[in-house]
Amino acid sequence: MSPVAAQYQRAVVLHGPKDLRLEERVSWPPAHNHAQVAVQSTGLCGSDLHYYLDGRNGDFALQAPFVLGHEAAGVVTAVGTGVKNLFPGQRVAIEAGIMCKACNYCKAGRYNLCKDMRFASSAKTFPHLDGTLQDRMNHPAHVIHPLPDHCSFEQAALAEPLSVLIHAARRANLAADQRVLVFGVGAIGILACALANAYGASQVVAVDINQARLDFAKSNGFASQIHCLPMADKPKTTDEQLRRAKDNASATLSKFNEPDGFDVVFECTGAEPCIQMSIHTAVAGGKVMLIGMGSRNVMLPLSAAALREVDIHGSFRYANTYPEALKLLGSGKLRNIEKLITHRVPLEDTARAFELLSRGKDEDGNMVIKVVIGPSSS
Amino acid sequence: MSPVAAQYQRAVVLHGPKDLRLEERVSWPPAHNHAQVAVQSTGLCGSDLHYYLDGRNGDFALQAPFVLGHEAAGVVTAVGTGVKNLFPGQRVAIEAGIMCKACNYCKAGRYNLCKDMRFASSAKTFPHLDGTLQDRMNHPAHVIHPLPDHCSFEQAALAEPLSVLIHAARRANLAADQRVLVFGVGAIGILACALANAYGASQVVAVDINQARLDFAKSNGFASQIHCLPMADKPKTTDEQLRRAKDNASATLSKFNEPDGFDVVFECTGAEPCIQMSIHTAVAGGKVMLIGMGSRNVMLPLSAAALREVDIHGSFRYANTYPEALKLLGSGKLRNIEKLITHRVPLEDTARAFELLSRGKDEDGNMVIKVVIGPSSS
Amino acid sequence: MSPVAAQYQRAVVLHGPKDLRLEERVSWPPAHNHAQVAVQSTGLCGSDLHYYLDGRNGDFALQAPFVLGHEAAGVVTAVGTGVKNLFPGQRVAIEAGIMCKACNYCKAGRYNLCKDMRFASSAKTFPHLDGTLQDRMNHPAHVIHPLPDHCSFEQAALAEPLSVLIHAARRANLAADQRVLVFGVGAIGILACALANAYGASQVVAVDINQARLDFAKSNGFASQIHCLPMADKPKTTDEQLRRAKDNASATLSKFNEPDGFDVVFECTGAEPCIQMSIHTAVAGGKVMLIGMGSRNVMLPLSAAALREVDIHGSFRYANTYPEALKLLGSGKLRNIEKLITHRVPLEDTARAFELLSRGKDEDGNMVIKVVIGPSSS
Amino acid sequence: MSPVAAQYQRAVVLHGPKDLRLEERVSWPPAHNHAQVAVQSTGLCGSDLHYYLDGRNGDFALQAPFVLGHEAAGVVTAVGTGVKNLFPGQRVAIEAGIMCKACNYCKAGRYNLCKDMRFASSAKTFPHLDGTLQDRMNHPAHVIHPLPDHCSFEQAALAEPLSVLIHAARRANLAADQRVLVFGVGAIGILACALANAYGASQVVAVDINQARLDFAKSNGFASQIHCLPMADKPKTTDEQLRRAKDNASATLSKFNEPDGFDVVFECTGAEPCIQMSIHTAVAGGKVMLIGMGSRNVMLPLSAAALREVDIHGSFRYANTYPEALKLLGSGKLRNIEKLITHRVPLEDTARAFELLSRGKDEDGNMVIKVVIGPSSS
Repeated sequence: MSPVAAQYQRAVVLHGPKDLRLEERVSWPPAHNHAQVAVQSTGLCGSDLHYYLDGRNGDFALQAPFVLGHEAAGVVTAVGTGVKNLFPGQRVAIEAGIMCKACNYCKAGRYNLCKDMRFASSAKTFPHLDGTLQDRMNHPAHVIHPLPDHCSFEQAALAEPLSVLIHAARRANLAADQRVLVFGVGAIGILACALANAYGASQVVAVDINQARLDFAKSNGFASQIHCLPMADKPKTTDEQLRRAKDNASATLSKFNEPDGFDVVFECTGAEPCIQMSIHTAVAGGKVMLIGMGSRNVMLPLSAAALREVDIHGSFRYANTYPEALKLLGSGKLRNIEKLITHRVPLEDTARAFELLSRGKDEDGNMVIKVVIGPSSS
Repeated sequence: MSPVAAQYQRAVVLHGPKDLRLEERVSWPPAHNHAQVAVQSTGLCGSDLHYYLDGRNGDFALQAPFVLGHEAAGVVTAVGTGVKNLFPGQRVAIEAGIMCKACNYCKAGRYNLCKDMRFASSAKTFPHLDGTLQDRMNHPAHVIHPLPDHCSFEQAALAEPLSVLIHAARRANLAADQRVLVFGVGAIGILACALANAYGASQVVAVDINQARLDFAKSNGFASQIHCLPMADKPKTTDEQLRRAKDNASATLSKFNEPDGFDVVFECTGAEPCIQMSIHTAVAGGKVMLIGMGSRNVMLPLSAAALREVDIHGSFRYANTYPEALKLLGSGKLRNIEKLITHRVPLEDTARAFELLSRGKDEDGNMVIKVVIGPSSS
Repeated sequence: MSPVAAQYQRAVVLHGPKDLRLEERVSWPPAHNHAQVAVQSTGLCGSDLHYYLDGRNGDFALQAPFVLGHEAAGVVTAVGTGVKNLFPGQRVAIEAGIMCKACNYCKAGRYNLCKDMRFASSAKTFPHLDGTLQDRMNHPAHVIHPLPDHCSFEQAALAEPLSVLIHAARRANLAADQRVLVFGVGAIGILACALANAYGASQVVAVDINQARLDFAKSNGFASQIHCLPMADKPKTTDEQLRRAKDNASATLSKFNEPDGFDVVFECTGAEPCIQMSIHTAVAGGKVMLIGMGSRNVMLPLSAAALREVDIHGSFRYANTYPEALKLLGSGKLRNIEKLITHRVPLEDTARAFELLSRGKDEDGNMVIKVVIGPSSS
Repeated sequence: MSPVAAQYQRAVVLHGPKDLRLEERVSWPPAHNHAQVAVQSTGLCGSDLHYYLDGRNGDFALQAPFVLGHEAAGVVTAVGTGVKNLFPGQRVAIEAGIMCKACNYCKAGRYNLCKDMRFASSAKTFPHLDGTLQDRMNHPAHVIHPLPDHCSFEQAALAEPLSVLIHAARRANLAADQRVLVFGVGAIGILACALANAYGASQVVAVDINQARLDFAKSNGFASQIHCLPMADKPKTTDEQLRRAKDNASATLSKFNEPDGFDVVFECTGAEPCIQMSIHTAVAGGKVMLIGMGSRNVMLPLSAAALREVDIHGSFRYANTYPEALKLLGSGKLRNIEKLITHRVPLEDTARAFELLSRGKDEDGNMVIKVVIGPSSS
């Protein structure tokens, strides 16, 4: 065991909606099979933002102050007894979820479905497991992954959202030479585009309602073609909404000269009209992959899926993806991926980072896609 | 080529809703690569009934008089030039769909998705391709399948609906030792149960709203356990309907002591509440297989599927299933399967058969499950 | 933690070839996340026999006295802290291998390939991990599996060899209605037959050089058909051996009227001529599953496999199979499976059990298939 | 039907070993469902060369004069009745094999295993089906594939060998981010490298005994790293050969810092020592894909495969690959692929092309990889 004595470090603690406090905490040496990591970069995501704004994320409400952040990389500062794969000074990414390793899901390699998963920065379990918005954190060594040489801390922070897409791609059997359609080009949608390209997609089309985002996706080479959905009045009836979704889908397919549809559709918006469109834009025998599940109940044109054998898959987090995500990030195959990170903020200014994310634009009118929190500046 | 001269035969021709006429037609010798089959047994199914009652089946309306029937077996009476796998006198089952054999779906083994499929007894294509409710029919030899020794004509007529289930089971990766739940125990649901048993399911539970059907399924060994859903007033709101589906699902899982859910759920009713329940009754990582797709648009508890990685698959007809279906039917592994056939009617009484199917009970109050049309009695 | 004090128990310790000693050892309370099991039944297998006879099993030689046995079931007598899935009095099967739970193989569900696996009764790792031929043993709770109600300790001891077959069947994508050929009907081959039947194989043919074993397989319903290979002089050349294998394969296929071959061939002998035959008896596009790998280097008719796309798979132990194995054993689907256990011997007579196994016949001339060691008789 | 009258055209006809004759033949209009193609490019491959040199290819000997060539592209000059997907003037690639479309392999999408396949330029069936070394040929429309805009005739001629690799890659489940090792960098091996790169391999290592070929592969970006095997005396015994293969494998893995091995090994030499090495260089749980099957019987270190669950797959030709192959060739993703074509020869000089292939070097000492035959020059 490394002889690191207790010392102090700083953590950004959420006490309630918009109530972030920079606190000093004792830093303990890592336990058996654990390592201590000095966090260098943490990307913020939508669930962090929900906790920040509302003190809850869907069903899971804050029950005690805790630390957000789960897209993180840093440097190993100490290792506990029993740790063989890590050493102090090593550059690593932190996989936030700690699976039970004993249930049937864990043993069969689907640990993302483990019911006893404790996930750093999620309020689902209690006591909550603190996330990575702190100077140093202890974490089990088996979910800490070494970085390849050409992967920066910031890039490594993207390994988490990229893992979501790698997992989704595996579930969709995404293969080379397929035609891919992506609904929604926020951070997740752009990663979907980038991954499809790295996997050899023959074409990657992005659809959104925000032209600026689409232009960003096109000009940086993430999407080969883009389509901006028309904004419209709220439909008066469910039938009208379904009809519109079908018409919009037809128009999209015509525009891209793919009358039969796309092999894989990644739905990254969670919006009901897009979920409906995703079914109509998939080819017979194709797949719809639901990634951004905001909508609890959705009116689906189900026979249009069933009779054409369009499979509807959801994906929940990821399992066994970090090594591949980091390898990809270090390989340069995800061209321009670092452009996703539009803003960098030191740890003590985390509240400002959340405000940027919440507004979607910064003071100069620039688009906010991914904000990464760095170490505390002092 | 067999020297069969033109002669007369009889066919049951649908001219409009409930307008069936027994007509004499010339019987032509089979063309190149075709064989002529004297039909001995034709099972009637729901789509036949729709055509009979309404002159249409969903989107597909009768545009000219045509012959129904697509679950058939008979005896080869003549073979055209080029036919090598068949000979006169052979007992065979007729696979009703004629795929194009040239498109990518056909070449890749998913011919059920072939857009140029012509399907005997379907009004989707025009001119309509006549079905099997006739004394003799010519059909391409490559979709005519020899019967195993211990398979009767009546059993062979079940190869078509059984094919639907074999196809669905393949798409669901149904494997031995899985826990299977079946919604709806009409003919299709019972075949789902029988197939799951033959494939080594560890448990097969059937759910329906009809206690008599459930009792039939249980007493004949198709289902190991049964559950009758409570009838209730129509829910006032979508939310109430969804809440009820969830509650009913929980109650079902509790009753069978499967709190986590079933590995594969075969939804054979097409009813919205059952489709909703099917998602809640599947285990995390499991499959919902939609077979009876009556509902065009369905309100789905989609996040309950996506976040638990419950895959939603539809199945459309079948591909490459007849050899296995016939082998199974001849093997005796589908114990009691012949009990599905509750009524037998000669060709000239086809209208009466449809009336039986439509009412669901015969004159003596016996349940009607599958009606098989035999040869004309004179 | 259960307050079980240190006490004494007996173990059968192997000190060298044929040097088994019944020793008294202290019985410690189970550690954190471990349970203590009073072993009731241990089946002996070929690797145990190798250690007994030679003090080694292939490359792995005894480096210190240790305890054999890894096919075991018993009763939980105490549980350590942290154990939630077990309680004293519970009937359980012991999965002998302890995987690291941290490597990529473990996390991806292929823990049988874990390089840090410690396997009770194997001398591969040092210090050796003692096996189950003792009154009580402590073992991690996550590899201890509760028995279903209708599964005896003896049957549960078969969960280990059955796991080998379940794993092999999964790797071979063994599906219902396939034609299965099994080379070698010792305990493993018979389990292969039984599993294929439970999974709905359309036909199970067994091949061996021992007519008595074949008769056993046939008369108990494990194999639907059997074939006894002719004994012959050792071939003078490799070419002659290969030619014979091909001729024997042709004769076998002719005999069973399967000119194209079998969908899955389970090779359970490890003998070079049978491995060669297995390739020729598999259908184009089929699978050869190598289970009994005694032969290090084998002359293979490789183009006969490659050009017909016959896949050659090996299988090594098993992963995530115990729950299914126990469910199967408790279900009654493996009809007559208990007849595999031909001899029962108390712990203190283990040496006699090995002698029975080694000779293959008992004093009365009865065939020895599986010998199960019971608790010590006093 | 197109009104093309019978006219004359030229064909290069093989009459016996090294006996090629340029003959005039009548050119017939295409039959029903057939099209006529004016061949613009035909690549020559190893089986063509065998026929040219020896009048036979393995078991298949010339029984009558016939035309070689099966890697071809050209322009449609006429279409028969029934042809809907083609029109005169269209640029197309010719898929040489004509499957029966009626057997179970064809219907299930594995038509490469069709026993009634007739393959243009193969002497396996009789009468032999002429290949593409002629001015014009008639061929079934369903195995003629339109070229994408940015795919030249020469590139399209590569669709055939590329199909071999696409098929092999599918069978090996080649996925993005895998580590790939390729034995043998002739035309097939280079296509294996190029395909692995296009599919997102994390690393592609090429091994050969020919430094010049390796340099070609490296300098054109096909392989990220290369390794030249040492030439050595013929081993005196099988054991020595096996030991060397193991040692060479270890050295290769050490050199590339992949001690565990590669995820997929493409064996493109057919040489026994390389096949042996391929097993030792695959990672536990990985795949060996046998592509160049020259060796009928091979001494394999089989337990090294079986106990590590290294699957041994062969691949035979291809099925459903042409659309993807052409899409890839037109996409520019196979960077530098046209450099494979080192020599171009007009139809009337085909004999010279075979001599080039046979010698492996041209008169100026340049390496011969792929020779493409163009139209006749006059």
